[in-house]
Amino acid sequence: MTDPKESLGKVRERIDSIDRQIQELISERANWAQEVARVKGEGLSAIDYYRPEREAHVLRMVVDRNKGPLSDGEMVRLFREIMSSCLAQEDPLKVGFLGPEGTFSEQAVRKHFGHAAYGLPLGSIEEVFQEVAAGHADFGVVPVENSGQGMIQVTLDMFLTSEARVCGEVELRVHQCLLSRAAALGEIRRVFAHAQSLQQCKTWLRINLPDVECVAVSSNAEAARLARHADDAAAIAGRTAGKVYGLKPLAEGIEDRADNTTRFLVIGRSLFPPSGNDRTSLLITVNDKPGALYDVLSPFAKHGVSMNRIESRPAHTGKWQYAFFIDVSGHIDDAPLQAALGDMGPVATQVRVLGSYPVALP
Amino acid sequence: MTDPKESLGKVRERIDSIDRQIQELISERANWAQEVARVKGEGLSAIDYYRPEREAHVLRMVVDRNKGPLSDGEMVRLFREIMSSCLAQEDPLKVGFLGPEGTFSEQAVRKHFGHAAYGLPLGSIEEVFQEVAAGHADFGVVPVENSGQGMIQVTLDMFLTSEARVCGEVELRVHQCLLSRAAALGEIRRVFAHAQSLQQCKTWLRINLPDVECVAVSSNAEAARLARHADDAAAIAGRTAGKVYGLKPLAEGIEDRADNTTRFLVIGRSLFPPSGNDRTSLLITVNDKPGALYDVLSPFAKHGVSMNRIESRPAHTGKWQYAFFIDVSGHIDDAPLQAALGDMGPVATQVRVLGSYPVALP
Repeated sequence: MTDPKESLGKVRERIDSIDRQIQELISERANWAQEVARVKGEGLSAIDYYRPEREAHVLRMVVDRNKGPLSDGEMVRLFREIMSSCLAQEDPLKVGFLGPEGTFSEQAVRKHFGHAAYGLPLGSIEEVFQEVAAGHADFGVVPVENSGQGMIQVTLDMFLTSEARVCGEVELRVHQCLLSRAAALGEIRRVFAHAQSLQQCKTWLRINLPDVECVAVSSNAEAARLARHADDAAAIAGRTAGKVYGLKPLAEGIEDRADNTTRFLVIGRSLFPPSGNDRTSLLITVNDKPGALYDVLSPFAKHGVSMNRIESRPAHTGKWQYAFFIDVSGHIDDAPLQAALGDMGPVATQVRVLGSYPVALP
Repeated sequence: MTDPKESLGKVRERIDSIDRQIQELISERANWAQEVARVKGEGLSAIDYYRPEREAHVLRMVVDRNKGPLSDGEMVRLFREIMSSCLAQEDPLKVGFLGPEGTFSEQAVRKHFGHAAYGLPLGSIEEVFQEVAAGHADFGVVPVENSGQGMIQVTLDMFLTSEARVCGEVELRVHQCLLSRAAALGEIRRVFAHAQSLQQCKTWLRINLPDVECVAVSSNAEAARLARHADDAAAIAGRTAGKVYGLKPLAEGIEDRADNTTRFLVIGRSLFPPSGNDRTSLLITVNDKPGALYDVLSPFAKHGVSMNRIESRPAHTGKWQYAFFIDVSGHIDDAPLQAALGDMGPVATQVRVLGSYPVALP
């Protein structure tokens, strides 16, 4: 048997040598990023080099290559940060979001742009649109959909009156688990969770734990902390909290909507080329007459363009007009989507391409 | 001359190949980190593998090797995140801090532990100490010194009554610049800044811009935004804000205290071995009699141990007793420090080693 101290020393030597290589490669990568800047022209800012389609492509390759032991999410996070640092050698990207700092929106900014971008906390979703339009922010990140509450209307309405383009989407996912020291559901008498989480898991709780006492506490982390001291208690929280507090997941994915996600849009001022796996957001205005919706949707079906979302809003352009926000698969440069829009005909009084952008990474 | 498009394609191919190598190396590193876990024993949590002295050593090597183009700070940040991800393969570290999220304290947590650690926002500095003591948090991060306000008394006082150990220090530095579109100081009529920044730069402003109007606004970012539209205005903000808003720094480091830093301590439950460049925090209680302070300090001078800080507080242990918080260079295992403490003699009613820990990285 080898001496643990000796083998620890050897492992550390090995890690040191790996770190040396990683560092050399990161420096080389940063030099090549400067070379991209040189090719594109002098005196430009990060916004001039930033290519969401290229970043999405790089990150997809990272996921494809990943054989562990790090999770796809962790590996993508590390490459996002490496790209963020390389890009920020020029003036960093300015990204507006609904402040203050530390909100879910800032998490979305960091997930998408990394920590080397310059975050601009703003007072409202409207202000995010305004600052992007005025060029004070290069991009903005705004929430557009919460799987609990549905579409966020103020964000959709901003597209009716602004020229903003959609340049990306970010998804933050929360999977709720029932965590406990207990071995089986039958032993649970109390469930601790933040009020919002109790709400999100209402149906599951009614069916699976009809007689337990539900106790709202200040956070799910607090809930897990309380549950760790009782054999008859459980907490609703994320998987990580279970690992952290030494609680077993008795059930996973217990939120009523299987997919408890907040979706954000990255807004900017331009359209970007295809990344290979894209989505397109359209704003289509129609006159309110029988069959209008059918007439708008049938060209997509005809040309095999699959729709991901549709949401209608009263248009600001005229009485009895409706605006449909439609998300479809593919890039606006793709032939089927071009054909579908070509077939839209006179029913649509306006067709605006809000943007074509890479589908969100996990 | 080469075709820019063609050379862009070649640069991207080169970057893809670098990314492939970086990813392989990061995966290999993560595998070796698991090997460290195997050597140390099965079924342990991140806290059992986490070695602050080893991390500090790795990051110091990163700084020593760094030849650019990325700054030392960015390169250290990337390696911090890589180590953070590797460590979090086991149950992640739990780090308590003064919440809510998005505060300066959370920035310190992320700077020191990276984003794969589990942050625990808590309600007060006292609670951070309690959660660490109770084992609910592996570590805590608490502010201890602000170069403007001096030592943070509530943190020092917690050491008087708790068993907490100091396991690290983190410094967050803010250098203020005077940013403007104007070419010279003489053209400036108005200075925009957050009220706190105006306060921090009061002396510099009085001497260099005695007749200008100082306008307090909601943030320094807002100040920079306002200054960008006026030839006779300047903003006080960090260097990055200048890059972001296209303003020139007319003066740098204009804060009254040359070193505008908030210092945080990382608290835990154990002492760690030397990292090669360490600091030791001591708590020494003395009876209040003439010459007591001199008697406490002279052993350090005698043995060539340099002192970094000293702060006195009324001790909670008895009337007319005083506690001195003393930071000295070196690790408690170092011979000179051992000798100095051995010479302390009867003047000190109590000598507690709060901790020996790696000196903060830039």
